[in-house]
Amino acid sequence: MKAAKMTASELEERLAREFPQGSYGKRIHIEAVGQMTARLRYTVNERNLRPGGTVAGPTLMGLADGAMYVAVLAHIGWVPHAVTTSLTINFLKKPKAIDLIAECKLIKLGKRLAVGDVGIRSDGDDELVAHCVVTYSIPPHGH
Amino acid sequence: MKAAKMTASELEERLAREFPQGSYGKRIHIEAVGQMTARLRYTVNERNLRPGGTVAGPTLMGLADGAMYVAVLAHIGWVPHAVTTSLTINFLKKPKAIDLIAECKLIKLGKRLAVGDVGIRSDGDDELVAHCVVTYSIPPHGH
Amino acid sequence: MKAAKMTASELEERLAREFPQGSYGKRIHIEAVGQMTARLRYTVNERNLRPGGTVAGPTLMGLADGAMYVAVLAHIGWVPHAVTTSLTINFLKKPKAIDLIAECKLIKLGKRLAVGDVGIRSDGDDELVAHCVVTYSIPPHGH
Amino acid sequence: MKAAKMTASELEERLAREFPQGSYGKRIHIEAVGQMTARLRYTVNERNLRPGGTVAGPTLMGLADGAMYVAVLAHIGWVPHAVTTSLTINFLKKPKAIDLIAECKLIKLGKRLAVGDVGIRSDGDDELVAHCVVTYSIPPHGH
Repeated sequence: MKAAKMTASELEERLAREFPQGSYGKRIHIEAVGQMTARLRYTVNERNLRPGGTVAGPTLMGLADGAMYVAVLAHIGWVPHAVTTSLTINFLKKPKAIDLIAECKLIKLGKRLAVGDVGIRSDGDDELVAHCVVTYSIPPHGH
Repeated sequence: MKAAKMTASELEERLAREFPQGSYGKRIHIEAVGQMTARLRYTVNERNLRPGGTVAGPTLMGLADGAMYVAVLAHIGWVPHAVTTSLTINFLKKPKAIDLIAECKLIKLGKRLAVGDVGIRSDGDDELVAHCVVTYSIPPHGH
Repeated sequence: MKAAKMTASELEERLAREFPQGSYGKRIHIEAVGQMTARLRYTVNERNLRPGGTVAGPTLMGLADGAMYVAVLAHIGWVPHAVTTSLTINFLKKPKAIDLIAECKLIKLGKRLAVGDVGIRSDGDDELVAHCVVTYSIPPHGH
Repeated sequence: MKAAKMTASELEERLAREFPQGSYGKRIHIEAVGQMTARLRYTVNERNLRPGGTVAGPTLMGLADGAMYVAVLAHIGWVPHAVTTSLTINFLKKPKAIDLIAECKLIKLGKRLAVGDVGIRSDGDDELVAHCVVTYSIPPHGH
């Protein structure tokens, strides 16, 4: 168990500033980072929707990847070149057209490798819409 | 082995028409569909790029999912509510900032379940930047 | 959340009786079943070991699959023809040559599909040696 | 594309000699190694069978892992401490109670990381019973 090194707001602000074309601080907000965890909120709009009013799969995959990225950076500090090496997602039910909440829990946080699982659910609903396992490669860094 | 029921251009035109907010006919072009295969081209622009000039992971995941969707529809006909049930991706090397080519091969095409693998590479390069296995659930349909 | 329908000892006894060539009641013991969970203990012996005194990967995969099978049957009742449809495992560190503990948590338990995650660790150690996501197909049944 | 450094018979003999408690040279035979490929035959006996006369999932997972191990060693030479880091398997149809053929194709063979896919089918049948993606970590070695 490791404590977070950056707060949710520090990290959101830094991600928004350094990746201005990304979604942080706009459609993605970091709600919390805790011991080996991170929680993101994604504001769904009509561009993400598929026929039937459901959120597109790639949106969920991008969100899961983002939740893992945030969890890793929150715990190792600002090492933006950490990269996804693999991702496995199971889609469990159709998300509604409302905000999505992604909760990442780090399963392993080593010097070079991190593994986490991410559950995504519609805001206000307990059941997951998708479950994801993500692995990251962490480059050598001075922290 | 099943032969395709829709050609590449029929399918691209239909996807572009029915999902006008999507990327088909714009940044995604269906180059070919063959026996249990489909090939897509994705035009990379700066919105997809990550620091270092590489293509973002979610772009690759969305493209892999799209290649599988196209391969499935090409072979079962127009059943747009076919949905992704799982996706596993391994990122193999950093893509350059040039067009991506995604090639899907259907491993299994059953009545209700399809499984395919997708290799993604930068145009003009033989080595894969990512490899993906995707499963789809196919709803009952009249074809 | 669903409560278990069969206790750990009922299930172990039944699995041992109906699959006499299997490992239940011998090297695999069901320690507990709870709300959407199951915990198994695997007694490692030298036949499972790889060079360096570590447990072979297929042993871990079989154990993860078994933990999910037990969790599913505990919650839906005796439906032995439930079958694995997919499994993704990440190996996190080398297990020692001591008992393994596998803990399964059901992420989704639908009528036809179950998804669970399984963490495996060496007895007495907190860190996982492997993490697994398993999906099962549940045949129609009268329970 | 890399050519194999060890032949099928050299590798089978060495695996049988160094891992006498394993299955090489007994129930697993290496039929061929080619450019970035390997093919294994597994002799099914009743110990592998599940109710209904089908082969147990862990047998298929172990075989897929073995096919990848053989493919990697055939191409990098004798580096037995190469280890599985992840494995994703999709079970596609029930195998019959006859020999299984596993064909591995290396997707990437880097200095430290190898990724391969493995298709498993019943001998004499074209359709896959399982499809697998396996990643291996390769330790530093002198070859």
